Amino acid sequence: MDRRGFLKKGLLAGVGITAGLLAENLPALASRIDDVKLPLPYVKLDPQEIADKAYSEYFKHECCDGVFRSILDALKEKVGGPYLGIPSLMFWYGGGGVAGWGTICGTLNGAAAIFNLTCKDFKPMIDVLVDWYQKEELPTYQPKVCGKVDIPHFPKSISHSPLCHVSVQRWCKVASVALKRPILYNSKERSERCARLTASVAAKTVELLNAYHFGGFKPTSVKGTQKTKMECFICHEAAMKEVE
Amino acid sequence: MDRRGFLKKGLLAGVGITAGLLAENLPALASRIDDVKLPLPYVKLDPQEIADKAYSEYFKHECCDGVFRSILDALKEKVGGPYLGIPSLMFWYGGGGVAGWGTICGTLNGAAAIFNLTCKDFKPMIDVLVDWYQKEELPTYQPKVCGKVDIPHFPKSISHSPLCHVSVQRWCKVASVALKRPILYNSKERSERCARLTASVAAKTVELLNAYHFGGFKPTSVKGTQKTKMECFICHEAAMKEVE
Repeated sequence: MDRRGFLKKGLLAGVGITAGLLAENLPALASRIDDVKLPLPYVKLDPQEIADKAYSEYFKHECCDGVFRSILDALKEKVGGPYLGIPSLMFWYGGGGVAGWGTICGTLNGAAAIFNLTCKDFKPMIDVLVDWYQKEELPTYQPKVCGKVDIPHFPKSISHSPLCHVSVQRWCKVASVALKRPILYNSKERSERCARLTASVAAKTVELLNAYHFGGFKPTSVKGTQKTKMECFICHEAAMKEVE
Repeated sequence: MDRRGFLKKGLLAGVGITAGLLAENLPALASRIDDVKLPLPYVKLDPQEIADKAYSEYFKHECCDGVFRSILDALKEKVGGPYLGIPSLMFWYGGGGVAGWGTICGTLNGAAAIFNLTCKDFKPMIDVLVDWYQKEELPTYQPKVCGKVDIPHFPKSISHSPLCHVSVQRWCKVASVALKRPILYNSKERSERCARLTASVAAKTVELLNAYHFGGFKPTSVKGTQKTKMECFICHEAAMKEVE
């Protein structure tokens, strides 16, 4: 296929992206520009390979980017097409529960975005991942080469929550007991924990994606939990008052 | 400019996107594919226009999509180029604090993603927006045509938190007092509130973007607040125990 033929075929495959590369051409082209349709095609990925990438990515642009980019970049490489128009760094902001605000764990935010991109029915996927995240002893990932600090029997904790600050503080408490010294938020141990968590969640996300697209995905009924969470003010007013 | 000239110029402007439109061409092209570099160019937008769009978008794909898409689509129209490769629907998942989990308010998640796309220094932007969100009486937006329910003197509340479930429950409580009847999560009043909140946050986000790019942006010092939030387990252990 010559260059001209390639461009023509390229245009047919993705007119929406190509047509708009020049801002000054837009007014005339506006009616021809289609949005990138979701879900995008998915190919089977290797959970271990993605986990390794996510772990090292964490030390560059934190947790949310670690999960999002490690999966996105693999899909850019293996599928290409519409994935290439998505900036790999667009989830950097999710680190530390969104720019350090301690809300949703960045790993879950990044994973949820990937589900939204690749699964028509993305909500049950998010439910299963969040449910797993808050019930499992994490992190389980063991790096080949350690990024920050190598501890034998690296401490694990159950978060009981999808929130960064709850998840982090629970781990710090468990780690302080296990290591017999105070492990604080600004420690290299906590950073290492979040890097391993990023890898653990990235691997689980890929497992779920593989199951969803190639068979074996089972939705979890978490409706009760969600309703309780949304109505928390009714159940634990004292806790809310304390936060004020 | 003829079609060939347009394509050539288009290629120069966005080789990363164009080169990858065909998945089967990828192995050979891989080394030529560059990631979409951030931040992307921004042009001044009209806060009122974006708020109107965000309000009506809410009723289609919820709060997070409402803020993200209303701004993204305006930039697709006015700037084009790299914005066209980003799927407009990719933040649908953020609704109800991420698929209904009640974590970060979807409006903040969507706005934070826009800051990440368009501002080199996106963290202070997120800080100012979150700080404003949790201290302001919201929603302030008044729709021209009401989506769900029109109430004279629509109730406003201060969220004291960037979390969806806290923000929603506080508003429900204030609205129940104001309207002298129980206003619950599954009410059309609450839905109308979140639509107006989506519009209010979208407008504020655009105001901050205009100030950042064209002058007048002032970062807020919220370091104290953030530290308190991250270390919440230490300060209100009872609240955490109650949630268990």
